[in-house]
Amino acid sequence: MPRWGPNAAGRLHDAALTLFTEQGYEQTTVAQIAERAGLTERSFFNHFTNKREVLFGHTSEHQRQVVAREVASRPAATPPLEAVLHGLQAAADEVLEDFRELAAPRRRIIDATPELQEREEAKRAALTAAIADALRERGLDADTALLTAGLGLLVQQAAEQQWVRPDEKRPLRDLLPAALESLRGVVDGTTA
Amino acid sequence: MPRWGPNAAGRLHDAALTLFTEQGYEQTTVAQIAERAGLTERSFFNHFTNKREVLFGHTSEHQRQVVAREVASRPAATPPLEAVLHGLQAAADEVLEDFRELAAPRRRIIDATPELQEREEAKRAALTAAIADALRERGLDADTALLTAGLGLLVQQAAEQQWVRPDEKRPLRDLLPAALESLRGVVDGTTA
Repeated sequence: MPRWGPNAAGRLHDAALTLFTEQGYEQTTVAQIAERAGLTERSFFNHFTNKREVLFGHTSEHQRQVVAREVASRPAATPPLEAVLHGLQAAADEVLEDFRELAAPRRRIIDATPELQEREEAKRAALTAAIADALRERGLDADTALLTAGLGLLVQQAAEQQWVRPDEKRPLRDLLPAALESLRGVVDGTTA
Repeated sequence: MPRWGPNAAGRLHDAALTLFTEQGYEQTTVAQIAERAGLTERSFFNHFTNKREVLFGHTSEHQRQVVAREVASRPAATPPLEAVLHGLQAAADEVLEDFRELAAPRRRIIDATPELQEREEAKRAALTAAIADALRERGLDADTALLTAGLGLLVQQAAEQQWVRPDEKRPLRDLLPAALESLRGVVDGTTA
């Protein structure tokens, strides 16, 4: 399912996801991934440091950059969590929506592989830190910045969980405000 | 600083924390920890599977059990996040408050050691899962249970962060509702 045309990183990602799904993460080698993508192992290591990174490397940093940029660029009067929501929506559009059809199999592989779950946690921690940094630069105190970033991550996780469901057709950007509303219901105690 | 009298696990925990602080985590061996606690290596491995676990093993499971028990025992009409707050306060009293003077050095060692941060993330994930399970048993849908548990963990983290500050004297149980109020301020957009 190569979707990125000549883009080597994208082809490697697609090949890895296909092989992990077909034969399992543990059983798949870098050599097999490279071969399936029509590339050399050397080319693989030009893009990713190891097998684990192929599922993370190409979007994680881009996502962080987009969220941080958007949080920084909101008007000063924007409440912090609203600025974060805006950033997450921008990253949904610019980074994640293109990978929608790969998101569900990717999620299944991560959920089945402790090593990848650890990497996923590290990715979340890095995104949380990037958001908190961007909020502090807006003048928010460090404690509130960290709390707001944590809330943003909960909204992102809840929206992604809905996004990968087979019958869900809405774009991720539309699911983010819905997730924030669910979170508000819990915080206000209006959830039964 | 042995505070637990004849309790071997507690003495090992105290000895490990002292050695990690004095000479660093990487440089400390299980043999040294056992010796400092006046015990054998064999005795160490009766209590903990490895060096990393000595900072986690003796409280993590107890904390999960107390929180889950309290969430389960709240009246059905209690809003979910309030039930979680109650559980976190019970665990603060029964499990964590006794370790107050060790909490700040423990935090510094974890923050300086990526291997321990990973373990800390795993502990958080396990506590989140335990809370979500207890909420589902109260009849909450799975999505809302996970979101509520995630909010509970943010409250716990924010309260612990305040709790370990040198000039903070209030017990953790009193800092938890304050952290929830901060979180409410962010979610309602009333935080400047």
